[in-house]
Amino acid sequence: MPKVYLDSVSTTPVNPEILKTYEKLSADHYYNSDSLYDDGVTVYRLQEKARENIAELLKVKKDDLIFTSGASEANSLAIKGLALANPDRRHIISSIYEHSSVYNALEQLRRTAGYEITYLYPNAKGVIDPDKVKEALRDDTLLVSIMHVNNEIGSVNDIDTIKKVVKANSRAYFHTDTTQSLGKIAIDLKEVDLASFSAHKIHGLKGSGLLYKRQHIKIEPLISGGQQEYGLRGGTSNAPANIVLAKTIRLALAAQKSNYEHIGKLYDHCLSKLNDLTGITINSPAAGIKTIINFSTSIPSEVLLNALNLKGIMISSRSTCGSRINEPSRVLTSMGIADDRAVRISFDGDNRLEEIDYFIDALKEILQKYGRN
Amino acid sequence: MPKVYLDSVSTTPVNPEILKTYEKLSADHYYNSDSLYDDGVTVYRLQEKARENIAELLKVKKDDLIFTSGASEANSLAIKGLALANPDRRHIISSIYEHSSVYNALEQLRRTAGYEITYLYPNAKGVIDPDKVKEALRDDTLLVSIMHVNNEIGSVNDIDTIKKVVKANSRAYFHTDTTQSLGKIAIDLKEVDLASFSAHKIHGLKGSGLLYKRQHIKIEPLISGGQQEYGLRGGTSNAPANIVLAKTIRLALAAQKSNYEHIGKLYDHCLSKLNDLTGITINSPAAGIKTIINFSTSIPSEVLLNALNLKGIMISSRSTCGSRINEPSRVLTSMGIADDRAVRISFDGDNRLEEIDYFIDALKEILQKYGRN
Repeated sequence: MPKVYLDSVSTTPVNPEILKTYEKLSADHYYNSDSLYDDGVTVYRLQEKARENIAELLKVKKDDLIFTSGASEANSLAIKGLALANPDRRHIISSIYEHSSVYNALEQLRRTAGYEITYLYPNAKGVIDPDKVKEALRDDTLLVSIMHVNNEIGSVNDIDTIKKVVKANSRAYFHTDTTQSLGKIAIDLKEVDLASFSAHKIHGLKGSGLLYKRQHIKIEPLISGGQQEYGLRGGTSNAPANIVLAKTIRLALAAQKSNYEHIGKLYDHCLSKLNDLTGITINSPAAGIKTIINFSTSIPSEVLLNALNLKGIMISSRSTCGSRINEPSRVLTSMGIADDRAVRISFDGDNRLEEIDYFIDALKEILQKYGRN
Repeated sequence: MPKVYLDSVSTTPVNPEILKTYEKLSADHYYNSDSLYDDGVTVYRLQEKARENIAELLKVKKDDLIFTSGASEANSLAIKGLALANPDRRHIISSIYEHSSVYNALEQLRRTAGYEITYLYPNAKGVIDPDKVKEALRDDTLLVSIMHVNNEIGSVNDIDTIKKVVKANSRAYFHTDTTQSLGKIAIDLKEVDLASFSAHKIHGLKGSGLLYKRQHIKIEPLISGGQQEYGLRGGTSNAPANIVLAKTIRLALAAQKSNYEHIGKLYDHCLSKLNDLTGITINSPAAGIKTIINFSTSIPSEVLLNALNLKGIMISSRSTCGSRINEPSRVLTSMGIADDRAVRISFDGDNRLEEIDYFIDALKEILQKYGRN
């Protein structure tokens, strides 16, 4: 039985070259990057060189980058760290379909510190309307946090317009979660104040990520500690992981154009095949990212996922971070989609057209067996 | 020139076997541990099996363990997470010589939320007196956080007595940072409510750690996110690192007795050689852990460290997390030690007696060259 992995939005296989580099760095450069003897200083320099390289790749300043254990930490640090350092403004604007690391950070501020959160709903095209952001801005708005690409349906938000609206109409900071856009589509960080990045979604290591935060913006650390990361993220630096993150991002950006073209072909092929089937509703917006197709069928998603699993096909029904939670998906509900019949398929540069065909054939067979049509 | 690493308190070389296992897990089991298809469920089961194995090794319950990115995160989560979930009690007792991840977490609570922190000072033997803990307890004391082994001078606190004092005289929770004791001396978690653990101090991976928290104790997450780690620590699980942590702890505990005996010989040998030299003051308490000797010489620590570095000898002058901060060490100052002449040497199971001799010879030569005696 072939294994067909169509869940790259959830995580991606580690690039063997990245894993090998990490292993070599861990073995040769295990020294604490804050140690003052030569071998420690070497690790420090390698790490700072990596930070510099990432800054060049993302077209930002070196001192704007904070290594974290992943995008969830980066999102939490951006939101809660900013709130803790700026307690005078207690209104935040976000969207209802953010990743749980953003949504639950905001809900925690609301529950424990009385913050007022305005959650914007996606429009008919699945995106957050910049005009709605403008309407929601207030004098006491501390932050606007809107994700670049939604991880369940693939909406691409117009963050270039949103950030301009925020800057022109308020003194609020603008944060965006780029977990699903990095290495797929262009990200322009100019006028973005804070942004979160993940390594394991672009064939890097789990437990590795990045917060971009313009240096002058005050935040409080969540993970307290020593002098590491400008005093904003404590703990002995995971230098081997931080150093190899530069390579991870470099490889992802170098292959972005050709990968995304290939992904576009997979997407077009899959979409056309899905449209040929009866009883399929495409939930993803037409102008969404081509890595994600969310669609509903006539059978419960749990039944479909199990049947696909038996054929070696791996897809999801919602955000993997909420896969075991017995509540409707915030994302799908916000779009008026009944989530008990919706599933998500996602593509990566590694996937092949034949895998899509195998998936479509399996889907047809399962729908015939279990479907009501 | 030989390389002599006498700074294992700062970090340790990764065990090649642990690194290899991690690499294999990363390559074979890259799937998201929360994915519901077979390959995801396999990762989940491996991770939960690791949690179970660690629980057995530490003699606690499986559901009391939360994987983190390290001990600094565990300390921050224990302290700030507990405070956020229990806002009705705002007094905390700790010691003045805790690691910066504890101290700065407490100072953040004081600065940003008006918590009252009682910092206890070590007595003449370098330890926190349980009677002083008892005296400091109040009705509104939420937490007592006292480290097991101090990372700069090696004091071993009597946490077995302290926890009993806390339990008998208050409803406060007791937390201890075991970063420097795990794999060295016995840790009894019975009646301990929360404890922090690090992997990279026991030949494990950087970016890996653990919070032990008795399950019924309410905390709020610092890293928000999905269902991972009982909803208390978001982000896609770093499953390969979490799984290999079980092996890391198992190997450390299996070798603990023989390693610590060997370390005792290194310690005795080094201490006797240091005592033979003139102008040396031993700052570490006599009953301290045998992994650490803190001592002062007649020359500035910076000069000594640099001179040793030129001979390939790696030691520190204070906590590595504060190595670049231009302030006196809290730890040494609290003991009345002038920190500009103090250095710390630390031993591990890997070190050899000849390395101590090489260090002592180098030290003699440097003291003769730069010393005033």
